[in-house]
Amino acid sequence: MNDRDTMRTTDTTVNETQRLIASDKVEGTAVYNQNGEHIGDVYNFMVDKQSGKVAYAVMSFGGFLGIGERYHTLPWDTLNYDPSHGGYVVNLTREELEGAPHHARDEDPWADPDYGRRVYGYYGLPYV
Amino acid sequence: MNDRDTMRTTDTTVNETQRLIASDKVEGTAVYNQNGEHIGDVYNFMVDKQSGKVAYAVMSFGGFLGIGERYHTLPWDTLNYDPSHGGYVVNLTREELEGAPHHARDEDPWADPDYGRRVYGYYGLPYV
Repeated sequence: MNDRDTMRTTDTTVNETQRLIASDKVEGTAVYNQNGEHIGDVYNFMVDKQSGKVAYAVMSFGGFLGIGERYHTLPWDTLNYDPSHGGYVVNLTREELEGAPHHARDEDPWADPDYGRRVYGYYGLPYV
Repeated sequence: MNDRDTMRTTDTTVNETQRLIASDKVEGTAVYNQNGEHIGDVYNFMVDKQSGKVAYAVMSFGGFLGIGERYHTLPWDTLNYDPSHGGYVVNLTREELEGAPHHARDEDPWADPDYGRRVYGYYGLPYV
């Protein structure tokens, strides 16, 4: 919970229904592994401009106040929302995540045209 | 442009590729009508949790520092990104927008189970 999140959550009360979730509610939401350990947070997510589908979640992982923070791009389908945790659960160990494609704050992984395919490949999902 | 937007845009440089756009880049993006008039901004957007598709954009419209601001829920497909404007263009007059479903900051339009259907109906789009 940082200043940005505080501002966001006080902005409006309408951020979720049974079927829908607001973009700014997804951002900042905690991510847990199957053991219930808090392994990171959703930094933002990437929408496919053509299909209108959410394609990737970008998870921030470790670091303190943005220093040393790593960003992991995950296929959106690897995240499952768990109301009992109040966050997303991914079926990945800490080691699997540490070996996964990641980048620093000032790096642009998308400069590699094959990056999306590599991310889907790592998580064993078909790239479309 | 408020503090929140400033913080967001300086957070990271990776917010768009040819195919993808980051959630926090969509938020705060200007919305224009067909005459190129700036009619509002994207406040946030709503993702369908089951399909993973973006279903609605919530546009903030008028007001000053959040006072008197109105929020308009639009079917996502009514917004077209125009790189020359650096924003979204909607094919609606100011009058059409003023007559459209809208709510105040502290109102929850989704409390009405028929709200989504009403929004799609107003904009002449099939509700799925």
